Amino acid sequence: MDFVNIVGLAAGTLTTIAFLPQMLQTWKTKSAKDVSFAMLITFMTGLFLWFIYGIMLGATPIILANGTTLFFNLIILGLKVKYK
Amino acid sequence: MDFVNIVGLAAGTLTTIAFLPQMLQTWKTKSAKDVSFAMLITFMTGLFLWFIYGIMLGATPIILANGTTLFFNLIILGLKVKYK
Repeated sequence: MDFVNIVGLAAGTLTTIAFLPQMLQTWKTKSAKDVSFAMLITFMTGLFLWFIYGIMLGATPIILANGTTLFFNLIILGLKVKYK
Repeated sequence: MDFVNIVGLAAGTLTTIAFLPQMLQTWKTKSAKDVSFAMLITFMTGLFLWFIYGIMLGATPIILANGTTLFFNLIILGLKVKYK
């Protein structure tokens, strides 16, 4: 795998796993007051479109990265609604 | 512009502007306690790598989207540190 793809893979991995600590913190503190509802909805709509975009191109990395990030943010949204 | 590119452009726009409401909320409420520090650092590192990846490919949409999102998250991080 050439260097450019390694950078892309690392970028996709980091911007995906980044939401794990947010998910864990929200679950532990049972509070997501400071996490913007509008941000979550807008971000998740964008992630869903990236997911569709990946399917259209048949680009597995785009499908996997954005599908996973969408899943994590869905959990954060669920926790935010639950602990309102 | 064909449909696939429109979907990609819409996805990139949404996942970029999504952080504006988070920035405004944090600035208004002067509180970012619930926003995970680890998420911000990991996410911004990933965005920076996407930015480098875009430069390597000469892909302007990737450079613009991730550069802007990185800028917004830098402000959120600054506000979070300021209002600690």
